Amino acid sequence: MEIVAFFGLGQMGQSMALRLVEAGYQLNVYNRTRKKAEPLVEKGAQFFEDPVVAVSNAKVLITMLSDDQALKAVTTEEVIQALGDGGIHLSMSTISPKAAEELSRSHHEYGNHYLACPVFGRPDAARAGNLWLCLAGDEGAKNHVRPILEVMGQGIHDFGSSPPAANVAKLAGNFLIASAIEAMAEAFCLLEKNGVDPGQVHALLSQTLFSCPIYQNYGRSILEQNYSPPGFSLALGGKDMRLVQDAARNSEVSMPLASLLQDRFLRSLAKNRGDMDWTAIALDQREFAGLSTSQENK
Amino acid sequence: MEIVAFFGLGQMGQSMALRLVEAGYQLNVYNRTRKKAEPLVEKGAQFFEDPVVAVSNAKVLITMLSDDQALKAVTTEEVIQALGDGGIHLSMSTISPKAAEELSRSHHEYGNHYLACPVFGRPDAARAGNLWLCLAGDEGAKNHVRPILEVMGQGIHDFGSSPPAANVAKLAGNFLIASAIEAMAEAFCLLEKNGVDPGQVHALLSQTLFSCPIYQNYGRSILEQNYSPPGFSLALGGKDMRLVQDAARNSEVSMPLASLLQDRFLRSLAKNRGDMDWTAIALDQREFAGLSTSQENK
Amino acid sequence: MEIVAFFGLGQMGQSMALRLVEAGYQLNVYNRTRKKAEPLVEKGAQFFEDPVVAVSNAKVLITMLSDDQALKAVTTEEVIQALGDGGIHLSMSTISPKAAEELSRSHHEYGNHYLACPVFGRPDAARAGNLWLCLAGDEGAKNHVRPILEVMGQGIHDFGSSPPAANVAKLAGNFLIASAIEAMAEAFCLLEKNGVDPGQVHALLSQTLFSCPIYQNYGRSILEQNYSPPGFSLALGGKDMRLVQDAARNSEVSMPLASLLQDRFLRSLAKNRGDMDWTAIALDQREFAGLSTSQENK
Amino acid sequence: MEIVAFFGLGQMGQSMALRLVEAGYQLNVYNRTRKKAEPLVEKGAQFFEDPVVAVSNAKVLITMLSDDQALKAVTTEEVIQALGDGGIHLSMSTISPKAAEELSRSHHEYGNHYLACPVFGRPDAARAGNLWLCLAGDEGAKNHVRPILEVMGQGIHDFGSSPPAANVAKLAGNFLIASAIEAMAEAFCLLEKNGVDPGQVHALLSQTLFSCPIYQNYGRSILEQNYSPPGFSLALGGKDMRLVQDAARNSEVSMPLASLLQDRFLRSLAKNRGDMDWTAIALDQREFAGLSTSQENK
Repeated sequence: MEIVAFFGLGQMGQSMALRLVEAGYQLNVYNRTRKKAEPLVEKGAQFFEDPVVAVSNAKVLITMLSDDQALKAVTTEEVIQALGDGGIHLSMSTISPKAAEELSRSHHEYGNHYLACPVFGRPDAARAGNLWLCLAGDEGAKNHVRPILEVMGQGIHDFGSSPPAANVAKLAGNFLIASAIEAMAEAFCLLEKNGVDPGQVHALLSQTLFSCPIYQNYGRSILEQNYSPPGFSLALGGKDMRLVQDAARNSEVSMPLASLLQDRFLRSLAKNRGDMDWTAIALDQREFAGLSTSQENK
Repeated sequence: MEIVAFFGLGQMGQSMALRLVEAGYQLNVYNRTRKKAEPLVEKGAQFFEDPVVAVSNAKVLITMLSDDQALKAVTTEEVIQALGDGGIHLSMSTISPKAAEELSRSHHEYGNHYLACPVFGRPDAARAGNLWLCLAGDEGAKNHVRPILEVMGQGIHDFGSSPPAANVAKLAGNFLIASAIEAMAEAFCLLEKNGVDPGQVHALLSQTLFSCPIYQNYGRSILEQNYSPPGFSLALGGKDMRLVQDAARNSEVSMPLASLLQDRFLRSLAKNRGDMDWTAIALDQREFAGLSTSQENK
Repeated sequence: MEIVAFFGLGQMGQSMALRLVEAGYQLNVYNRTRKKAEPLVEKGAQFFEDPVVAVSNAKVLITMLSDDQALKAVTTEEVIQALGDGGIHLSMSTISPKAAEELSRSHHEYGNHYLACPVFGRPDAARAGNLWLCLAGDEGAKNHVRPILEVMGQGIHDFGSSPPAANVAKLAGNFLIASAIEAMAEAFCLLEKNGVDPGQVHALLSQTLFSCPIYQNYGRSILEQNYSPPGFSLALGGKDMRLVQDAARNSEVSMPLASLLQDRFLRSLAKNRGDMDWTAIALDQREFAGLSTSQENK
Repeated sequence: MEIVAFFGLGQMGQSMALRLVEAGYQLNVYNRTRKKAEPLVEKGAQFFEDPVVAVSNAKVLITMLSDDQALKAVTTEEVIQALGDGGIHLSMSTISPKAAEELSRSHHEYGNHYLACPVFGRPDAARAGNLWLCLAGDEGAKNHVRPILEVMGQGIHDFGSSPPAANVAKLAGNFLIASAIEAMAEAFCLLEKNGVDPGQVHALLSQTLFSCPIYQNYGRSILEQNYSPPGFSLALGGKDMRLVQDAARNSEVSMPLASLLQDRFLRSLAKNRGDMDWTAIALDQREFAGLSTSQENK
């Protein structure tokens, strides 16, 4: 089966790569630290210390890295060139539309295709192949990678031929999720300080008006103050809120709730909560209500 | 069957009263304007010009009015007294916890019970008996009205013996809904100004992470800029945001998103949008993005 | 000389009353606790346990109380009636325009005049007769009290014949002061976390672009984290921010900075800082930057 | 007298350069468009089309450009190299602390000194030599340029040896000014909608508690809705608010008022007000109150 290069073996990347190996793809993996590659190597993937070599016999490169900087650092001109004429970079990280635009251009110069394909879903969804994928870029390239994507996701949404579109869609989605976390965090504090059980209101609403995964699952995490280990870290969530705000600035859209979230994450980072789950912005809200944040001492 | 007095025949009240009449209850209706009572009178309800007389042969009084002021204006000492010893006031309006507390006390003085029972659902849900009910107050009284409530709602959630608890729960719910409207309004503008179809992102998310009525239905309204006639008016939504903020003040909870929403509604009212649906706060957000609000001229 | 009734002997009231006694006015003082009247009684004022008696031989009643509730509690119909036909209530507290409107009406019913005359200045300015006064109400009444006002203030600004106008002016002023405190609190944190001495920037700006008392004096308090004893308590400041926001609501003006301040004060109250000076909202901002608030342990 | 290279002849740069020429300095001027150099050439300055040549015989280079990008575009390695060993770049633009840090490093590599020296004051103050200067960088270099600075400013504030410190100080100052504009804009709307003359309240406060240039002058501009021609454009103000927020992000300081301002400027830009004076953010506030903004049609 096809050889695929895979860069970035964090929680998400590892789960996604495992599925590909299990589906029979020959995987050339690269990661800053070798250790995270071991579960994959055990299943037949090959580890490379040099990203250039890792892509040299592959037509498809998948990247799943933490941010613009990490992605740009590894996607050097040498790598793009080694990927070879007609090669496809399937870029699945949550990055800025601007970085997608730039990378798209630089791939084009070498005759390669850059596909944006950010994902919705946490590591367990990735492991189960249940991600939701936002795809954008060249038609032919999209057709080529479709079988690969079907191994990782339960649904592929096509946002056309311009890669940044998929990244904006992803940012809009993460903004909606963070907004729901914020709203629940505030509502629960109001209830608690008025002597009403937040769990009961959550039970009512998450079975009716808000009967969907985000309110059900994130709501429960907030109620249980269960923030470690993170499914998605507050540091990464904060990075995404920055990207949302940057996109809003660049397109001249005033988004007051996005600004509020940016401030919420910034405070949480200033209070050293970057390694908690991003639902832990609810701790900052508890402080806004003068409520104890016992979680912190756990 | 039991005689029930029913005050307040707005869109919601009328739908709820119709169900009771159809279920066989003998309804004594009172409303400021007689006209709205006509469909009920046709089905056998009796209209009263004097609220005191309307309650004099009833054990249960149901009220569904627009706000604290309207409720207090009609719930005079004379009415409470006429309701008779052991009478039950089933108060279903969205009012402040403070007003509920005060009314509860004044009913107690006359040996009556005050039950708070605000509802979730729009007029069509009320007509179909599909409301969600938040009930709180005296146990015996709650048992007595349960058959009545089952005619109007598809689920009854019991918030204990203190009436204001149900009102706080209702306010928390409306706050969550308004927050979701706000978040979608901002996200859709970001997408539109970046050349991405908001409808497509909405389709993706409202079938997956946000697969619930609020995101599905309200999202569609915003996309279609369909704000008239209102299912729930912006003026009433603004009143609720005021109640949320008052409850937050009184219990010393800083809720920045609630403050943002309060400002959003205030601006929309200053721009004469009180008669539109409350999703029309999205028009103010369009102005925040320098986008046209052609809807206004329709 | 003229007999003047004076209700409310807090920090401000006491200083103002002392000036009147020293200027030769015969003062009938009333206060919930007698103790605060002692310095005045020593100088010749007469203490009354019953406010009705206190006003019965006076043409002018001055009130300096903490809020709407306190003022309304003491300005009973009996007091207004006892003040006598043509009597003047010189109301100097910072209250809501709405309360001023209501009190104005009830005085009118008894043939009395209600003058709004809120003040700018702290207790030391009051003691020195250096307050700035915002006056509004009946022309004749204003002329009558002018000599009294000149004992207390260094400048009288006439806002016309409608009492609430003076209260709105006062609220606008307090809003501007709180905004300046907020701005400095944020700027100083930014400087400190970037290794720049906030004191130096303050020295530069408060001698040039911002060479005025608010920036000079409040800036110094924030730099020194000197919040006790309060010149003006955070609890009272929070009350004023509430009044600003209520006035904004009632006149349909969205004031996002006022909302931000309301939240800032609410949090500070939730953290039990009500007895500190209102500049102590800067402590909440330090927490927003992850900076220590050692002041709290003093 | 000393030869000085001067890049950037916008409103501010031109006024500053004129003072230097008039003080006898031999000026090598460079600007993207030659036209703006003419008044200087008439007085003896020499115009250069190539910035490298312009600095080749100068020990001191002064830059006054609109933003990070413009400054970096002109401060190429070739220019830095041509400035010669021991040369001094006196960088007076309002730029990000991060850009100052980077430029400082690149100058150091060539044995040159980078001095940050952003200024407070509008074009008329620049023309009169009345700027306030925030200076930071190498001690020897600072001593060398002191006579030059004294021609342009009425006061020099030394922020030590690290250039970015002066830029952070400048940003903090601009943030305080924008905050004062915001506060006045909101207060004036509250007054207007309550039937109180904002001009009268402004007169009272700007002679007492706020008796300083910012409140006096900017307040008057807002009252008169006098936004063209700009003393400092809204586009540049918006750029500065972005820099403030970036600095806040990078140093993990949540500044809610800075976020509010960022949104205010973003909306004003989305509404095409970039060429107005930055006090024109008050127009957006008028819309927040449902007040007319007739100014826009002038």
